[in-house]
Amino acid sequence: MTYLRNGWYCAGWGRQLGDKPQQRLFLGEPIVLFRRSNGAVVALGDRCPHRFAPLHEGRVQGDRIACPYHGLQFGADGRCQHNPHGDGKIPQAAAVRAYPIVEQQGALWIWMGDPALADPARILDISLFNRPAEYTTVVGHMLVRGHYQLVIDNLLDLTHAAYLHVDTLGAPPEQMLAPDRFKFEFREEAQMVEASYLFGGMPTPPQLQPFWPQASGDGRGVMRWHAPCNLSLSVSIDDPAHPEAGQYLQPSLHLLVPQDAQHTHYFFAVARNRYLDSADHSALIERDMRRAFEQEDEPMIQACQQLMGTPALFDLKPVLLPTDVAAVRARRLLDQLIAQEQRQP
Amino acid sequence: MTYLRNGWYCAGWGRQLGDKPQQRLFLGEPIVLFRRSNGAVVALGDRCPHRFAPLHEGRVQGDRIACPYHGLQFGADGRCQHNPHGDGKIPQAAAVRAYPIVEQQGALWIWMGDPALADPARILDISLFNRPAEYTTVVGHMLVRGHYQLVIDNLLDLTHAAYLHVDTLGAPPEQMLAPDRFKFEFREEAQMVEASYLFGGMPTPPQLQPFWPQASGDGRGVMRWHAPCNLSLSVSIDDPAHPEAGQYLQPSLHLLVPQDAQHTHYFFAVARNRYLDSADHSALIERDMRRAFEQEDEPMIQACQQLMGTPALFDLKPVLLPTDVAAVRARRLLDQLIAQEQRQP
Amino acid sequence: MTYLRNGWYCAGWGRQLGDKPQQRLFLGEPIVLFRRSNGAVVALGDRCPHRFAPLHEGRVQGDRIACPYHGLQFGADGRCQHNPHGDGKIPQAAAVRAYPIVEQQGALWIWMGDPALADPARILDISLFNRPAEYTTVVGHMLVRGHYQLVIDNLLDLTHAAYLHVDTLGAPPEQMLAPDRFKFEFREEAQMVEASYLFGGMPTPPQLQPFWPQASGDGRGVMRWHAPCNLSLSVSIDDPAHPEAGQYLQPSLHLLVPQDAQHTHYFFAVARNRYLDSADHSALIERDMRRAFEQEDEPMIQACQQLMGTPALFDLKPVLLPTDVAAVRARRLLDQLIAQEQRQP
Repeated sequence: MTYLRNGWYCAGWGRQLGDKPQQRLFLGEPIVLFRRSNGAVVALGDRCPHRFAPLHEGRVQGDRIACPYHGLQFGADGRCQHNPHGDGKIPQAAAVRAYPIVEQQGALWIWMGDPALADPARILDISLFNRPAEYTTVVGHMLVRGHYQLVIDNLLDLTHAAYLHVDTLGAPPEQMLAPDRFKFEFREEAQMVEASYLFGGMPTPPQLQPFWPQASGDGRGVMRWHAPCNLSLSVSIDDPAHPEAGQYLQPSLHLLVPQDAQHTHYFFAVARNRYLDSADHSALIERDMRRAFEQEDEPMIQACQQLMGTPALFDLKPVLLPTDVAAVRARRLLDQLIAQEQRQP
Repeated sequence: MTYLRNGWYCAGWGRQLGDKPQQRLFLGEPIVLFRRSNGAVVALGDRCPHRFAPLHEGRVQGDRIACPYHGLQFGADGRCQHNPHGDGKIPQAAAVRAYPIVEQQGALWIWMGDPALADPARILDISLFNRPAEYTTVVGHMLVRGHYQLVIDNLLDLTHAAYLHVDTLGAPPEQMLAPDRFKFEFREEAQMVEASYLFGGMPTPPQLQPFWPQASGDGRGVMRWHAPCNLSLSVSIDDPAHPEAGQYLQPSLHLLVPQDAQHTHYFFAVARNRYLDSADHSALIERDMRRAFEQEDEPMIQACQQLMGTPALFDLKPVLLPTDVAAVRARRLLDQLIAQEQRQP
Repeated sequence: MTYLRNGWYCAGWGRQLGDKPQQRLFLGEPIVLFRRSNGAVVALGDRCPHRFAPLHEGRVQGDRIACPYHGLQFGADGRCQHNPHGDGKIPQAAAVRAYPIVEQQGALWIWMGDPALADPARILDISLFNRPAEYTTVVGHMLVRGHYQLVIDNLLDLTHAAYLHVDTLGAPPEQMLAPDRFKFEFREEAQMVEASYLFGGMPTPPQLQPFWPQASGDGRGVMRWHAPCNLSLSVSIDDPAHPEAGQYLQPSLHLLVPQDAQHTHYFFAVARNRYLDSADHSALIERDMRRAFEQEDEPMIQACQQLMGTPALFDLKPVLLPTDVAAVRARRLLDQLIAQEQRQP
């Protein structure tokens, strides 16, 4: 199993990491996250080098985490800093891996590759989700029983809303995908692909009705994938015939991290430009996000994964449709980046 | 894992396939069954060639089934007949496998091998189970956690009733297998083996008492295996000393389909020549069939399979007893048919 | 997976084997235990050589066990002694393996290797646990989801009580492992290693308070490992400043048998020299033993096993601490014994 290692992955939402250490499996590697006494986040390999106990079950003591089995303590740089046994000498090899990690705009970003290459300037700009005067944002986490590339495929092709989400986020295909109303555009950059969808005059999807009460509107969705696994979606609805209805904006983030070959962490953020102070509307958005994904997308992704029997999509010679271009390009770009990385010494 | 592909397997009972598509795994292959608008049954590969979604979760629209993920529609011949995306052009490769399937005498029969060789004349004659004036028939389905050849072994050797089914379908061995009362005969044909059992003057097994109230009788069981996996059993009880008691007849079908190396579909039919109009007696037969198989046979088959650790029985050099002859011959014949089929180009 | 075969393993406690046959998986081999009509214990391979049915589901009839599937009967020597089928002739190959087994001092001891080498004189002397005037003993069984060598590692290093058992069997490390109060000694013999611990003036651990009501005392623990997997622990507490408090003694046995590469049988016995007649104190000891092991040790062992990903500890180059010496020596000795055994023809 190969992943792109030199890239920033979302390790969670800052507000969801408190005093208790958190365990995560990223790219097949067990990691423990915790906060130092000054609040800074630390990411270490979650396996004590002594007896291979899980550090996340231990206690944070100041700037260190203590192994729950025999008490070795490790600092933010991963080195053992306290050995309670014998003469207390610290064996040379007593260290775990320390991962570069940055807290920025409410998100934690971890670098899984060569620390020397970790450049925080390359972290995705998500400042839009931290403008409380314009937007209210809901964040959350889901664990998907599916390969991360299947989740990216799913997100980049919004036409599936006309089938899989017809009762939640979409509308019937004859109204959503009719050639005279539907428009699809694609473009790509070095480590980004963008798929833009226009659903002209579509009936308002059930899950958007609390925010856009009109019976229909011009829906737009611009989905961007940024290597390795970070997606942003910009949704808008308006109605040129009724400019007084204004424009509903719902930007969202879909930040993925492979857990292993069969599972994917899915950190989401959904912002809205209406009902900024309504806790009810926030609860609705979180519930609906989970409902659409966990009850509609995830079972489908899981079923496809099982029927594929391999993560290597192209080996199965899939029949490709015009709207697959974005997903296919994202796969090709990621494959290139991984191959490139593995050629390096 | 090798199976005989060129053979008719039971795909279910016609009355149990309604408007909703049905998913089955036969010989390791995912298959979707559905009815066309004229009622005819269709069997297709259950994996869309686009993104490998399970077709059985889609809707039947007229003569086609629509993929639940992105809406491609497939007809009875397996070819895509509607593409709702882009210009609607249908890619050449957009097709799934179509399996020959026949509905006959209440059963569905599927051909898993070369369609050119599918000859409905070779389907097992089960017309006996469709003579309502003479018999009432109960049908059902079980999924067995065991290799299909272990289920065939189980069915062909009825002596196990004296041990495993002593409280349901059998009687204690000293009464059921005593040399002066018990008789066993065996014969075989090209693709059939037959094991005949006479249990003279045996106590009436508990599960037969509602149909044969006398305390004892001469029980007969003739079990036939037809390649690949279709078995029929003819059970009768009478008492020559009391001809006025008549004869109770209970013919049954045991139609197996390998699901995979560890599981077997078991479609059963049990007919009786008494209490033809009694729903209670029908319910009793179904309950007892399930009880004897699911609580007695299946756990034993599953335990043997686990202790064997391989489906290759003969590799384990089993100690064989005289009553194993039918099961051993059925295995040999099936092995020959499979070897023969695989030698063909 | 390799185990030491020529060694006595505990197969259970005699009082826990009654009339019903018992199934066990030892060293990956299915075994059935039952008592002959004279009460003597028999251990046979639990797989009928006919159709590979599990014998333990059959009935004991006098000195034999009958196969539940087709009725072959096997005696204490493993040979088939009754065939109810055909002419009743017993096939030459109809036999299962018979394992030497001895009932001694309340325990059952099984020999998994060459029967010619099984010398009962080499069985561990546990007579201490059968002196009712001095001690009352509680026995039990647990199945651990962990490799047996991880359980031995756990038992030989008592310092983990200061971390993992700080609320049950231990005390905080600064009180239990302080250099001026803590003393550790190690010695080894041919097939034995011994780790001795002195915890001077330690606070009485919560689970010992019902037996040693003083707030503190000098705790001693001497853990011995005897090849292959039999451990004994001698625990004592006294207080030289208060000789009138006497001495509380709690000897215990920790007899392990590998079930397979991931699971271990754990037969325990805990004796005490106080409250000999109190059923409440017996219940307390059993509950506490299970609580400490099942809620504290076992989850840790299981987590380490998962993080290791292999049973080969040394391949992972663990950082070793002074108190690991006993566990490391036991592993080395056992590895030598296994290598030696496998070199033999």
